[in-house]
Amino acid sequence: MTHLTRSYFVKLDEQDQLAHFRNRFQLADDLIYLNGNSLGPLPKAVPRRIEQLINQEWGQDLIRSWNKHQWIDKPTTIGDKIARLIGAGPDEVLVTDTTSVNIFKLAAGAIAMRPERRKIVTELGNFATDLYLLQGLESLLGEAVEVCAVPRDEVISHIDDRTALVLLTHVHFKSGAMWNMTDITQLTHQHGALMLWDLSHSTGAMVVELNQCNVDLAVGCTYKYLNGGPGSPAFMYVSKCHQNQFKQPLTGWIGHARPFDFDDQYQPAAGIKQGLCGTPAVVANAALEVSVDLLLEADLLQVRKKSVAMGNLFIDLIQQHGNWFNISSPVNGQVRGSQVSIIHPAGYAIMQALIARNIIGDFRAPDHLRFGFAPLYLRYVDLWDTVEALADIMAHHIWDCDQFKQHQAVT
Amino acid sequence: MTHLTRSYFVKLDEQDQLAHFRNRFQLADDLIYLNGNSLGPLPKAVPRRIEQLINQEWGQDLIRSWNKHQWIDKPTTIGDKIARLIGAGPDEVLVTDTTSVNIFKLAAGAIAMRPERRKIVTELGNFATDLYLLQGLESLLGEAVEVCAVPRDEVISHIDDRTALVLLTHVHFKSGAMWNMTDITQLTHQHGALMLWDLSHSTGAMVVELNQCNVDLAVGCTYKYLNGGPGSPAFMYVSKCHQNQFKQPLTGWIGHARPFDFDDQYQPAAGIKQGLCGTPAVVANAALEVSVDLLLEADLLQVRKKSVAMGNLFIDLIQQHGNWFNISSPVNGQVRGSQVSIIHPAGYAIMQALIARNIIGDFRAPDHLRFGFAPLYLRYVDLWDTVEALADIMAHHIWDCDQFKQHQAVT
Repeated sequence: MTHLTRSYFVKLDEQDQLAHFRNRFQLADDLIYLNGNSLGPLPKAVPRRIEQLINQEWGQDLIRSWNKHQWIDKPTTIGDKIARLIGAGPDEVLVTDTTSVNIFKLAAGAIAMRPERRKIVTELGNFATDLYLLQGLESLLGEAVEVCAVPRDEVISHIDDRTALVLLTHVHFKSGAMWNMTDITQLTHQHGALMLWDLSHSTGAMVVELNQCNVDLAVGCTYKYLNGGPGSPAFMYVSKCHQNQFKQPLTGWIGHARPFDFDDQYQPAAGIKQGLCGTPAVVANAALEVSVDLLLEADLLQVRKKSVAMGNLFIDLIQQHGNWFNISSPVNGQVRGSQVSIIHPAGYAIMQALIARNIIGDFRAPDHLRFGFAPLYLRYVDLWDTVEALADIMAHHIWDCDQFKQHQAVT
Repeated sequence: MTHLTRSYFVKLDEQDQLAHFRNRFQLADDLIYLNGNSLGPLPKAVPRRIEQLINQEWGQDLIRSWNKHQWIDKPTTIGDKIARLIGAGPDEVLVTDTTSVNIFKLAAGAIAMRPERRKIVTELGNFATDLYLLQGLESLLGEAVEVCAVPRDEVISHIDDRTALVLLTHVHFKSGAMWNMTDITQLTHQHGALMLWDLSHSTGAMVVELNQCNVDLAVGCTYKYLNGGPGSPAFMYVSKCHQNQFKQPLTGWIGHARPFDFDDQYQPAAGIKQGLCGTPAVVANAALEVSVDLLLEADLLQVRKKSVAMGNLFIDLIQQHGNWFNISSPVNGQVRGSQVSIIHPAGYAIMQALIARNIIGDFRAPDHLRFGFAPLYLRYVDLWDTVEALADIMAHHIWDCDQFKQHQAVT
């Protein structure tokens, strides 16, 4: 490893073909934002769109906006746009509800498609909501479901001919480790099971090819690398090939074939729309559409290339500065998502000390410091400055004061 | 009945103690908005709050806002405020998800609390999503649930000792007919069943006393009389007395006792928070809080008094103008919600002709014209002008032209 210098990072920024995107976000020049894997920043085009939605569409056009401004169509029109970011086709993706609620819909739908099987394989240490929703489904359905949550290195050996569904998060929320989507989906299909990928930490930060990988089902979050805004609605994907068999249990009025007939009997809409349940989140959808449009301007191959390069450089810098931390993420960039996590028992206080210097990453209990690399707005030089700050904090024990040690929850 | 005149309505407005509230909403002077039972108008204080949320909280403070601006607490702080509008106590109401999703949670939770029973009684012609979600639960749970949906006048006779749950909408979405909450809840309890009220068409338009009526469970919509904005999140209520036994199946990470521990095993939060599932809808919550605060300024007894008076006057006016319409709503204001519905086979075209005159009510298939009376911003004189316009449209067959007959869905 050559000894890295700050001027090298400055030069990388000068050559970066994605660098111009930073100006599309509301980010102070002196802010280093390494938390886009938790909450993406504000695209500059959002406030104007929201103002228009609030004042014109809600304020002036009122109820007429459901048709006039296509409020009713947004779950599918934005869904079709997200589809282009994850290798899905039209009418396969829907913007609706939360990732959590969508996991429930898809897992319940999958179990019903494999009535002779009851086993759902997932990973211990998976993002908590994925585990919890499966546990909720197990409690509700009793003997029809058996959740088999095993350590990461045992997942593959537990996928067998009794398996109905495999639910994995493509990029691990803590470590950033990435599953091989092609191989795991293929293995799952060899055993006759269905594959549900949680793309919360993938979408918008890399190329995802759901159709090419023959993925059955997927969910994902839109407020991380999609920059959709705090609590923006999630998406769900059901492969075209399953849409005739697939039935989800949250059969709300907007998922009906003819919602405004107000029939007494539910009849699912054709295609992906059957995944809808209640009234769409109109205001949040408006912000999300702007953010997705922005991401569609970028080349995801370039995005991924920069993301991997940034992760590699960050690890090099951390290692160059001594042995303060264990690296929790894969060192091989090809099997790592768009983040690097490092471990220290005083992780919380160290992150607080960094935040005090306007360098924002996040902390995941008990000991993970997470740094997300969103290639649309992160500068190479930010990596250098972050690790310099980190080294200073460690060398001078700056984290070891009461100011930084009081634990507060952050999402 | 005295023959009514326009000047009488003008005088009523001059004496109206709620009249000053109209100026708190973004409503053009020449607009008559009778659709607040579908989508409430924009409170003038909302745009500024949203701008602050978008630019300052999301744009500047970013991820730190979850704590700094209490994003994480809003489901319960706004829930506690809504509680004051429906006669509930602190920690009994939660703002989360949609009415549809909340119906599923509460109905599933109720069935689990009556394991020896499987019958859920509801009303045919109830708002569609209430019926559909029960049907979804029935499909999912098989023999553990039997949905008994019967005509309105047979509901009472079907509540028996085999009944686990009764789900009724307090005010009917089409007719505006109101159930007697005290009596039905009491009858339900006499049979050992649980009572779930859908308050979508009640909340904010009248006094509701959940605790006084010993109601077990309730849900409701916030974008109608609460003016929370298009697609704003719904609320759910679980009586304190059931919170230790109650378990809902959508066990997402935000409903965990310690969400940021990321434990592998779900453990429900204490109190109403266990009803949370995914990440809260932060932007929508900001608008909703402003709207709820506005409503809390009003005296709900006064609101109800004006609403009943308006309904009575509207019916008088319709009848004074001849026999164009059948009145679908109860003529007795004491058993009517805050709307009057009238019936005509050409209802859709008639409503379109009214809308063309800037008088906005709505249409519910196949033949209901709905007029909602939101006492905070509706003027008495609006009633007069609406019925005058309606009479003109009918007398001159103005609705009977192609312009008004093409059916488009509106929510």
